[in-house]
Amino acid sequence: MKRKKLEKIGVLTSGGDAPGMNAAIRAVTRAAISNKLKVVGIRHGYQGMIDGDFVPLRTRDVSGILHRGGTVLKTARSMEFRTEAGREKAYQNLKKEGIDACVVIGGDGSFTGALIFSQEYDIPFVGIPGTIDNDMYGTDYTIGYDTALNTVVEAVDKIRHTAASHDRLFFIEVMGREAGLLALSAGIAVGAEAILIPEAKILEKELDQFLKKGYKEKDRSGIVIVAEGGETGRVIKIAKAVEDNYPNLDVRVSILGHIQRGGKPSARDRIAATKMGVAAVEALLDDQKSIMIGLVKNFIVDHVPFNKAVKLNHSIDEDLIHIQSIINI
Amino acid sequence: MKRKKLEKIGVLTSGGDAPGMNAAIRAVTRAAISNKLKVVGIRHGYQGMIDGDFVPLRTRDVSGILHRGGTVLKTARSMEFRTEAGREKAYQNLKKEGIDACVVIGGDGSFTGALIFSQEYDIPFVGIPGTIDNDMYGTDYTIGYDTALNTVVEAVDKIRHTAASHDRLFFIEVMGREAGLLALSAGIAVGAEAILIPEAKILEKELDQFLKKGYKEKDRSGIVIVAEGGETGRVIKIAKAVEDNYPNLDVRVSILGHIQRGGKPSARDRIAATKMGVAAVEALLDDQKSIMIGLVKNFIVDHVPFNKAVKLNHSIDEDLIHIQSIINI
Amino acid sequence: MKRKKLEKIGVLTSGGDAPGMNAAIRAVTRAAISNKLKVVGIRHGYQGMIDGDFVPLRTRDVSGILHRGGTVLKTARSMEFRTEAGREKAYQNLKKEGIDACVVIGGDGSFTGALIFSQEYDIPFVGIPGTIDNDMYGTDYTIGYDTALNTVVEAVDKIRHTAASHDRLFFIEVMGREAGLLALSAGIAVGAEAILIPEAKILEKELDQFLKKGYKEKDRSGIVIVAEGGETGRVIKIAKAVEDNYPNLDVRVSILGHIQRGGKPSARDRIAATKMGVAAVEALLDDQKSIMIGLVKNFIVDHVPFNKAVKLNHSIDEDLIHIQSIINI
Amino acid sequence: MKRKKLEKIGVLTSGGDAPGMNAAIRAVTRAAISNKLKVVGIRHGYQGMIDGDFVPLRTRDVSGILHRGGTVLKTARSMEFRTEAGREKAYQNLKKEGIDACVVIGGDGSFTGALIFSQEYDIPFVGIPGTIDNDMYGTDYTIGYDTALNTVVEAVDKIRHTAASHDRLFFIEVMGREAGLLALSAGIAVGAEAILIPEAKILEKELDQFLKKGYKEKDRSGIVIVAEGGETGRVIKIAKAVEDNYPNLDVRVSILGHIQRGGKPSARDRIAATKMGVAAVEALLDDQKSIMIGLVKNFIVDHVPFNKAVKLNHSIDEDLIHIQSIINI
Repeated sequence: MKRKKLEKIGVLTSGGDAPGMNAAIRAVTRAAISNKLKVVGIRHGYQGMIDGDFVPLRTRDVSGILHRGGTVLKTARSMEFRTEAGREKAYQNLKKEGIDACVVIGGDGSFTGALIFSQEYDIPFVGIPGTIDNDMYGTDYTIGYDTALNTVVEAVDKIRHTAASHDRLFFIEVMGREAGLLALSAGIAVGAEAILIPEAKILEKELDQFLKKGYKEKDRSGIVIVAEGGETGRVIKIAKAVEDNYPNLDVRVSILGHIQRGGKPSARDRIAATKMGVAAVEALLDDQKSIMIGLVKNFIVDHVPFNKAVKLNHSIDEDLIHIQSIINI
Repeated sequence: MKRKKLEKIGVLTSGGDAPGMNAAIRAVTRAAISNKLKVVGIRHGYQGMIDGDFVPLRTRDVSGILHRGGTVLKTARSMEFRTEAGREKAYQNLKKEGIDACVVIGGDGSFTGALIFSQEYDIPFVGIPGTIDNDMYGTDYTIGYDTALNTVVEAVDKIRHTAASHDRLFFIEVMGREAGLLALSAGIAVGAEAILIPEAKILEKELDQFLKKGYKEKDRSGIVIVAEGGETGRVIKIAKAVEDNYPNLDVRVSILGHIQRGGKPSARDRIAATKMGVAAVEALLDDQKSIMIGLVKNFIVDHVPFNKAVKLNHSIDEDLIHIQSIINI
Repeated sequence: MKRKKLEKIGVLTSGGDAPGMNAAIRAVTRAAISNKLKVVGIRHGYQGMIDGDFVPLRTRDVSGILHRGGTVLKTARSMEFRTEAGREKAYQNLKKEGIDACVVIGGDGSFTGALIFSQEYDIPFVGIPGTIDNDMYGTDYTIGYDTALNTVVEAVDKIRHTAASHDRLFFIEVMGREAGLLALSAGIAVGAEAILIPEAKILEKELDQFLKKGYKEKDRSGIVIVAEGGETGRVIKIAKAVEDNYPNLDVRVSILGHIQRGGKPSARDRIAATKMGVAAVEALLDDQKSIMIGLVKNFIVDHVPFNKAVKLNHSIDEDLIHIQSIINI
Repeated sequence: MKRKKLEKIGVLTSGGDAPGMNAAIRAVTRAAISNKLKVVGIRHGYQGMIDGDFVPLRTRDVSGILHRGGTVLKTARSMEFRTEAGREKAYQNLKKEGIDACVVIGGDGSFTGALIFSQEYDIPFVGIPGTIDNDMYGTDYTIGYDTALNTVVEAVDKIRHTAASHDRLFFIEVMGREAGLLALSAGIAVGAEAILIPEAKILEKELDQFLKKGYKEKDRSGIVIVAEGGETGRVIKIAKAVEDNYPNLDVRVSILGHIQRGGKPSARDRIAATKMGVAAVEALLDDQKSIMIGLVKNFIVDHVPFNKAVKLNHSIDEDLIHIQSIINI
């Protein structure tokens, strides 16, 4: 069978939203048009494929979205896409629309979906990693991480004022399902007195030390950053235990919550998203499929097979753990 | 008895901290020195009076604090100051230090304390209203309100992105013990679909209308601002009820929490604090006592007796409620 | 002649753009629709009337603009509207479109144009003051002022770091054609060592004093805020003179420029714009014409005849000048 | 001669200030104390060595500076340090103070100075790259770059509003003596219509194309980012030429100036500075000298000899130039 030449591509965002997704949508659209391709936006993630929720994207449609948080294409989780019937409906809609290939912006779940679909149907997918967790294998960077990190840092800077004014000890919960990179990095950036992440037991000892030794001084407030770690309310349990053991401390809890996903993307996220968006289109033009665009070393583009990318990278930057133990005297 | 000439004043912050308190401390210090007075900082609020926790303030000691959140003098609630024995200790310390008068920056509790103390001892107090609630009688403005309002607005702007990307309905809790002004103003500034405050039952109907009518459309996310209202977890209860009645909605809750007290003071808070700080010193020089500095009309200085100021002003700007019902179609 | 009932209104922005104009457009549109009126956006200011550059505004057209800087209706200065021929063309277009009345958001020039037009033709105009200068007679507030003030303050906070690190004296030019309120307020909010505005000669003496007395100390940097004052390059001339007289100083100049007009509107600007937008529509419904909506006292709506409003208010808050001389010791 | 054991180190900032320098000072101090070393702050760069302007640094002295812009140790350029007599004075002061080694935070000029000094005297120096230009050989990152990039992006986002509201073409000058990386990256992050940097002639053609083709459409504003390029007023000349050739365009110029050096360091800058500060102390403990700490690949610490580091890296990320030509259709 003679393959059809690439003429029209679809682009979708899937999974949790992350700042910079719009910059990626813009870059995919403009790079495609620049290469004489037509572009269709698929709304609400994979569910939009099933519902045929398509919208043509021209240059002007992606004008003025570069600096906006969230995703103009919206995103959703689709149970139906996990069924064969759902995926067949999706395929029929893509064919009817004349879409020859897709760029999907999302996380490991999104790429797993793309891989299964590509193995069943003749539509190539290229992925762009978009998640604030920065825990994907094969890329040093995922879109949204830098903005989320700065959002956390700015929020904790604010809480630090109140903590210091009242000599309080704050336990602050930071997002990160199974990964503690965001919490660890934020903790170092705010000068946290202690950091608790799933990956490093050693850091718990430092909290003990801080509580026993350092906290005796008067006029001493403290910030403890706690990674969410997949267990809701973990921060409350930890704070409660400390309060019980140290009844003289004025302990407070703050759960940063959904502000961490929002906001204008930082410069770094806009540039990463733009690089990746262009690279995704070029990969499709180069006849690539089932790969995720990665940024490695100093933000250089790389290709990572989906089946590798979907294995989450839980190794943490050991250097940061070392630094925290040195700095936090 | 011949009264001693005013030579040395004390300044303290009391109650919850608010952005702009440092700007007020700076203005009090500089205005006093400019008028040949000496200034002593009293740390940790009224407790610092009892503990003799004093620190001399010179021009350079208040240099570089104008734009910092929190309070460099720290603040605390003092149970001991509520006792006669505590207040006598405080008086002895003030006398020993040679402090002739005090400026206290805080809320209604702080002024009640000052009033009781002044009725017992011959040390005049002038108050500066510092609380993010902006609910004091006799002043159109309290230090910290504008910064807190902008912090809330920026946080909700961020959550709006996520809400819109996922078609979610967010219930967001905003500070305000008994007063809903912060929530109402923030709600209008972010274009909230509904606002729930203790003072206005009418706004609850609008939430019903929004849920019944407006929310049917696809692609519709929503933000509901809920004033804390002295009842912890109120927002969770409200969101739960909506979720039960509208099982198709993707309802989420966010409690903004302590970030609302922190942050660099806005221009408005810095200017208000500076005006009030200068006015407080001038009031003491003019032989005033037991009054709070207010800002009325277009930020013009006024004097308000403590016993009036401590009656919280729970009347809400009716115009804002009217506007919300007009705008929110 | 029986007057036609109000059915359709036009809304336009005119003159220099200011943050919060979009919030006003949104409020006018929603308040009108809420009152069963139709709304037409007139693009590019008065020139758009002449060109018939109209666009219907429905609720969804003003969705998502509340927090955006600039004006989605665009703005321009129109020479043609100053001619009788131009205004007649504009009138014909308004009639053809069925526009019964207009809300114009802008400054004194915009209201002068509206007044002349209303005197010639039977189309009532109501104005909303939108200018970062806050120098209109009859209102304590003009849309954009608070955002511009905070933008200036944040920029100077940044320059302060560099100034302090290098012991430099910075002369920073702030916008304000003939009015110095923005410069004076910003100067107090950043703790400027000196402030130069057209309205107050006394402040120049303080610069002299600072240079003679205060600047001798080592490790002393300084910030001097200079109001543009209608004379381009004024700040450069002033800085040059100081440099000549004090050759040991490391003098630098910074002109803040166009960033002062941009940015997301602050909470205060969004609320002011929303209040004024609703009030403008209600004024038209109440058969008012040739008035500007003002906010007086504590942000209460007032009506000000155009011919009063166009007289710029150059009186400065004397209290701020007093404060600066007290604080700046 | 038996070498003295490392007991006390000096730390200084030199050259232009950059956000994150304080985070580096804090990390050096804490890492040193953590390793039982004493720390002395040398104020005003190399001039402070000559003047003996030293201050002891303990843990608490570097508390609360992590998030502050500028440098608490101040910085200056020293002509005297370029003379042998000056350097001898510096050496005598270091000896008298008992300083065994130094960490210098700065740019290529600072490292050249350190190299000359180390070749003359037996005091080892380790360098940390701190400059907003990010143009040092041997490191993917220099402290201050990310904050400056975000400052530029936020400023241009603001100007974009005004440009769009008035259909204006803005030429905006961004810092970067000989290097265009900041301008190029910022241009991509803001979606500039054109970018002019010394390193890439090709981008000038795109400005021509934009002016000829793209700008015909009505309702089109534009942002052109121009790297300073060592030639003051370059942007004015360029804008003037465009204005002459296209008299219908409303051309404006904005020079961002000193705000680019200031501001709170971003999360990335705080983390980079902390990593580098710890690594610099560990390098001295490992008997290293005359090297700069670099961050390579994914922020991994590396050592770069001073005589390599001082060769500025003018090679630009070609990928970014490619992207700009693809995206900017």
